[in-house]
Amino acid sequence: MTRCTYYTATTLDGFIADEHDSLAWLFEQETQEGGPAGYEEFIAGIGAMVMGATTYTWIGDHLRANDEKWAYDIPCWVFTHHDPAPLGDAITTVSGEVRGHHAAIVESAGDRDLWVVGGGDLAGQFADAGLLDQIIVSVAPVTLGAGRPLFPRRHDLRLVDLDRNGDFAVATYDVVGRRSD
Amino acid sequence: MTRCTYYTATTLDGFIADEHDSLAWLFEQETQEGGPAGYEEFIAGIGAMVMGATTYTWIGDHLRANDEKWAYDIPCWVFTHHDPAPLGDAITTVSGEVRGHHAAIVESAGDRDLWVVGGGDLAGQFADAGLLDQIIVSVAPVTLGAGRPLFPRRHDLRLVDLDRNGDFAVATYDVVGRRSD
Repeated sequence: MTRCTYYTATTLDGFIADEHDSLAWLFEQETQEGGPAGYEEFIAGIGAMVMGATTYTWIGDHLRANDEKWAYDIPCWVFTHHDPAPLGDAITTVSGEVRGHHAAIVESAGDRDLWVVGGGDLAGQFADAGLLDQIIVSVAPVTLGAGRPLFPRRHDLRLVDLDRNGDFAVATYDVVGRRSD
Repeated sequence: MTRCTYYTATTLDGFIADEHDSLAWLFEQETQEGGPAGYEEFIAGIGAMVMGATTYTWIGDHLRANDEKWAYDIPCWVFTHHDPAPLGDAITTVSGEVRGHHAAIVESAGDRDLWVVGGGDLAGQFADAGLLDQIIVSVAPVTLGAGRPLFPRRHDLRLVDLDRNGDFAVATYDVVGRRSD
């Protein structure tokens, strides 16, 4: 069965980017190569990725600023109300409810898993639809006080795994469901 | 030297209480008696505690609702602009900058440490004044999406210790200082 994971970094106070969408607080942290919940190990199991318009735009800006190319060869689904220029091959733009596109996204992942890249609201939409299985967060030793929220929803989780990777606390949670209170 | 620690529980998305100051999300979690960063071990090293008006009011309401008494015999300093009824002995209300009261608070702790109970803004005031040494957070497996912020400041921390205690991820951070970006 295809597993759907929201794999992201966050500040200790729950922001995935600052108010200006900067990730400076993230890139200055150190990780341990081959360490727990590392990116290389994670991405090896991923067959398709999903992101929102802001995340996609951020990646495009970042690639242009650094004269880099789209790094992924797996299908990427972008939830957007606009029609952004494709940054690479196998990018599909969609809009509307996540449930309506889920079968196609799962199909595109083959026998591997789905990665919800972000932002927090898109991950929340997957969770609300009962389609998010796990959250894996790398918690940076930083507080920002404001910014883009990690997961703007009331949900119960279950701590499955906890480890340190360099400067990060890395936690894996199963998504239990929406809170009733 | 007296160490000053902000010891608190938080949701994964950085809230220490929900929008209605409820801690229902917290009390339903399980902890392991005698486990890492447990309350009994922590409080044994504390000589005085400091809290803001909202936290103090919350405790008062909670005590009245449950017909309980003030549980602390160490000095408690309450930063407030009001003049709340004392909930127990050795409670002192103060107002204004934390720096102006710091010497007296440290003095009252004897040879033990200080506990900043909360809220997040008071802990931030201690940090801004260079008077907060550590943050120990018990992260509950819950997201709330909104509520009272853990630490509404831009600060760098250093992860010192990481452990699991029951349902919680427990992390100890040294406070490094304000971020410049």
